Amino acid sequence: MPTKTTKKAAPKKRAARPKAQNRKSVSTKQSPKTKPLPKDAVRLVPLGGLEEIGRNMSYIEYKDDIVIMDMGFQFPEEDTPGIDYIIPNIESLRVKKDKIRAVVITHGHYDHIGAVPYLMGKLGNPPMYALKLPKAILERRQEEFVNAPKLNIIEVKYGDKKKIGEHIELEFFGVEHTIPDSMGVIVKTPAGNIVNFGDFHLDRDKEGNIFHYGEMERIGKMGVHTFMMDSTNALTPGFGVSEYEVVENLEKLFKDANGRIIVATFSSMLTRIGEMIKIAEKLNRKVIINGRSMKQNVQIAQNLGYFKFKKDTIAPVQELKRLKDENVMIISTGAQGEPNAGLMRIVNGEHRHIQIKENDTFIFSSSVIPGNERSVQNLTDNIARQGAMVYNTKLIDIHKGGHARQEDLKIAISKINPKFLMPIHAYYHFRFMAGQIAQEVGIPKERVRLVDNGQVCLLTKEDFIITEEEVPTNYVMVDGLGIGDVEEVVLRDRMMLSEEGMIVIIATINRKTGKLIKNPDIISRGFIYLRDNQELLKEMRAKIKGIVSRIPRQQQLDADYLKSLFRDQIGQFVFRKTRRRPMVLPVIIEI
Amino acid sequence: MPTKTTKKAAPKKRAARPKAQNRKSVSTKQSPKTKPLPKDAVRLVPLGGLEEIGRNMSYIEYKDDIVIMDMGFQFPEEDTPGIDYIIPNIESLRVKKDKIRAVVITHGHYDHIGAVPYLMGKLGNPPMYALKLPKAILERRQEEFVNAPKLNIIEVKYGDKKKIGEHIELEFFGVEHTIPDSMGVIVKTPAGNIVNFGDFHLDRDKEGNIFHYGEMERIGKMGVHTFMMDSTNALTPGFGVSEYEVVENLEKLFKDANGRIIVATFSSMLTRIGEMIKIAEKLNRKVIINGRSMKQNVQIAQNLGYFKFKKDTIAPVQELKRLKDENVMIISTGAQGEPNAGLMRIVNGEHRHIQIKENDTFIFSSSVIPGNERSVQNLTDNIARQGAMVYNTKLIDIHKGGHARQEDLKIAISKINPKFLMPIHAYYHFRFMAGQIAQEVGIPKERVRLVDNGQVCLLTKEDFIITEEEVPTNYVMVDGLGIGDVEEVVLRDRMMLSEEGMIVIIATINRKTGKLIKNPDIISRGFIYLRDNQELLKEMRAKIKGIVSRIPRQQQLDADYLKSLFRDQIGQFVFRKTRRRPMVLPVIIEI
Repeated sequence: MPTKTTKKAAPKKRAARPKAQNRKSVSTKQSPKTKPLPKDAVRLVPLGGLEEIGRNMSYIEYKDDIVIMDMGFQFPEEDTPGIDYIIPNIESLRVKKDKIRAVVITHGHYDHIGAVPYLMGKLGNPPMYALKLPKAILERRQEEFVNAPKLNIIEVKYGDKKKIGEHIELEFFGVEHTIPDSMGVIVKTPAGNIVNFGDFHLDRDKEGNIFHYGEMERIGKMGVHTFMMDSTNALTPGFGVSEYEVVENLEKLFKDANGRIIVATFSSMLTRIGEMIKIAEKLNRKVIINGRSMKQNVQIAQNLGYFKFKKDTIAPVQELKRLKDENVMIISTGAQGEPNAGLMRIVNGEHRHIQIKENDTFIFSSSVIPGNERSVQNLTDNIARQGAMVYNTKLIDIHKGGHARQEDLKIAISKINPKFLMPIHAYYHFRFMAGQIAQEVGIPKERVRLVDNGQVCLLTKEDFIITEEEVPTNYVMVDGLGIGDVEEVVLRDRMMLSEEGMIVIIATINRKTGKLIKNPDIISRGFIYLRDNQELLKEMRAKIKGIVSRIPRQQQLDADYLKSLFRDQIGQFVFRKTRRRPMVLPVIIEI
Repeated sequence: MPTKTTKKAAPKKRAARPKAQNRKSVSTKQSPKTKPLPKDAVRLVPLGGLEEIGRNMSYIEYKDDIVIMDMGFQFPEEDTPGIDYIIPNIESLRVKKDKIRAVVITHGHYDHIGAVPYLMGKLGNPPMYALKLPKAILERRQEEFVNAPKLNIIEVKYGDKKKIGEHIELEFFGVEHTIPDSMGVIVKTPAGNIVNFGDFHLDRDKEGNIFHYGEMERIGKMGVHTFMMDSTNALTPGFGVSEYEVVENLEKLFKDANGRIIVATFSSMLTRIGEMIKIAEKLNRKVIINGRSMKQNVQIAQNLGYFKFKKDTIAPVQELKRLKDENVMIISTGAQGEPNAGLMRIVNGEHRHIQIKENDTFIFSSSVIPGNERSVQNLTDNIARQGAMVYNTKLIDIHKGGHARQEDLKIAISKINPKFLMPIHAYYHFRFMAGQIAQEVGIPKERVRLVDNGQVCLLTKEDFIITEEEVPTNYVMVDGLGIGDVEEVVLRDRMMLSEEGMIVIIATINRKTGKLIKNPDIISRGFIYLRDNQELLKEMRAKIKGIVSRIPRQQQLDADYLKSLFRDQIGQFVFRKTRRRPMVLPVIIEI
């Protein structure tokens, strides 16, 4: 007998969301039974980003005013097959959309802005606050959605303060991340200052001075009630690598290449792309940008003056044939092996202007999104088969690069010195570890708040209470034109279909006699190739006939009962024969 | 419009196997057109393991004698949903099974032995050669397969020589890997010595002396025609970490734990498991083994005398309640978040004897098999939610640990000093890089052979020719009781079903009039939840009726034509409405 039959039990990865009883064990949680809930508290509600990577969104509510922070999407996971994106669930906000005064966007990455075109219309299109670059990215993207409203984005600068409604003030400040124009926000509320850094890492100059260090000190001195802290890298020990070191290392890497350099990365890595172009310029290489989204982003950043290099360093692809190999750098999308991306076309020999040469050096971002491993491996193999060198480098890794590591988190925590630390971003384990780290810089466990998506928090001057109130945060899935119409049940079916396939049994029955009018029809997909298994097909038909014939004639045909007989007995029969559990879908046609 | 619609085009990861035209570009390949093929050559045929991780198997054939090396399986990949294992394709061997004189098993890991119960019967159950531990593992596992033949395994020792048939001699030698009793084999043929190390890394004692170093020198001096070299780690720079260092580091890690230590790893990591038990003994901890396969393997290794610790260091789980936390180490299966494994039961509170405590320290193997990321994350989060600490450590990483890195590969190559280097294991890019590395120690490109699965190689005293002859190596899939009955088409259907779901359309039609007898039946799974989309359902029905009504009455009902109309027009209609392409399965019931 085969030893591994676990998968036959049920689709594998169901329990993506923690169960309520597990949540209860979070020791920092205050029980509303012991203490009455405060009446005049500030409500802080995270809608996403605390039990996953992506779909970052949370809001702060006080009386008639609501401020939303970020509106990102999440890429599909192994248990959401076929889905385009997962976006935050805004059910709790729709009923009070008139109270929304502001949507603050911390930076222009899709895990923070991706859901904007899907949700802003449903929220009454409230005013947004963003720095120059994310504003441009948001506006450009919104144009792709014909039915989405024109956004009303107020461009802000570091240091700007904005009065929101009667009781809230926003103040924006600079943070470092892998895209220019990243900011944090201080939400000044009657309960105190809530500080959200968005995504951040600490970056240093060559003398070791941390950028925005004085800013962190200043914020700390203002007094901080709650520090919402990016914990994406809370499992990684040590200090972050500074951008100047990354640039030096990239330069070394690039210097070693004899022929052309082809870098595959994400189009959202704008800081890194800018640096690579600067290095290219220094090494006397022209840069060709390959891929639509990459071109758009570079164009935007260039137009807004974020890139400091000569205009003609970026060359149109047509110039390629006039350039020597050692004077070329190509920066391309498609590092994940996406079938339609720029890189795939090059590797498959389908690109109009770029073909692989033997002395090419390909450099890949090392972070492969789960599920893409085989595609990326195929891509890499196909490049190697054409004789070019391929390197993976962590230097252009997005997931690791842009988020503060343990030692840097400690610095941020001790500078901000909040009453309460609320780790945000990534999974529970990451936030838990952020809480552990905090203890080393004097934030005891009692002041750490591990909040799950949807848990309503009440903030008073003295306290931060995680209540038992929960707003809906179940996945809202974007699939083609549909938003939210693919539900759990559909995904469960997709998972089951992908593991075991299905059998449709069609029994055409004379309503009066209860007899089969014709041979049962059986179609099957993803189970076994029935054409090669005629014997099994024959046995199934016989089984179906047997089931129908054993039904007493006198009674009215009960189609539902008959269906359940088919489902059970054919299911069992097939399992006994094959050890597989295809979905059995019976159809009774009564004539 | 959504920007990401690539997935709608086609199932994503089809091109797992390289195309023939890509293979042609391998520069080392000799064209049979330029030179006539030698008549009296030794044939070397790799059946698996050269374009994937796993299903390692190859054979050497000379006149009437065949020697097979290894017979492993591969775990399913993202493009083989629902499959248990992938095993080597033995079509080319079945027809000449009478010539098979020996199956050499290099070590007891499933990627080298996993296919034995499925294939040995089909190959006439030839004699096998293995060291003591793999022999015991093979025999124990074979018992689980009731219809598989009893194996005829000849136990060998390092240094043994075996004459095989008339022209071949085998000689076995020791290598280091992550399981005891790993060996390499020298196949002495009329063309020369073919040396296969199996899986190996170089391990050193505290003085830096490499184990089996003299052995490598001795083999090199014998003269080696072809070195079949494990390239799994050919992308990793530097030297390997020695076992004694790993042990020291593990000891440090274990010393830091205050409460119980719970290690989750693979049951095949027997060397590491043995070391951990030794450390436990030193730290005055009893060891509880959790998980059926782990218990079995430890038992076998213990019985054969591979573990050097006191008998009672391993304690039955019932003793747990009598032991203090600081005297307990639990070693468990389930590091991949498998639903039925020992660890999952502990974490879900379903284990009869082991419950999580707040001061537990969990230590995970860091290598997560692709596709298990979310399961492992859930598992980790669930442990953290119960207040225990979780660490990932590369120290018990199987994929990295057991295979020689670049600098160690160079040492092996220069000691073995083969005429031809044939990198084996893992993907093309890895083997390509192994070939690059070899150049640094004096093996020029012309002597490197990058062979794909199934390519027949002819070895003469002077040459190693990759011919154009290919034997079948397409995936043979084990799914439940079926072996090889899940074919490409079934997998393609599974992939499509999992991304887009399906719609079954049943039209019951009067054969004579060509009219619909009843309202068309529509069932759907994995597409959208039709109950919530009655409008779409109604429109589909109307569309179906329209299609049927437009068929001219006079002609004979052409069911196939009608089906194709349904498929095309309903498919297009649904796509226009939803931007999704569910599989449309039309059924015509003629009455």
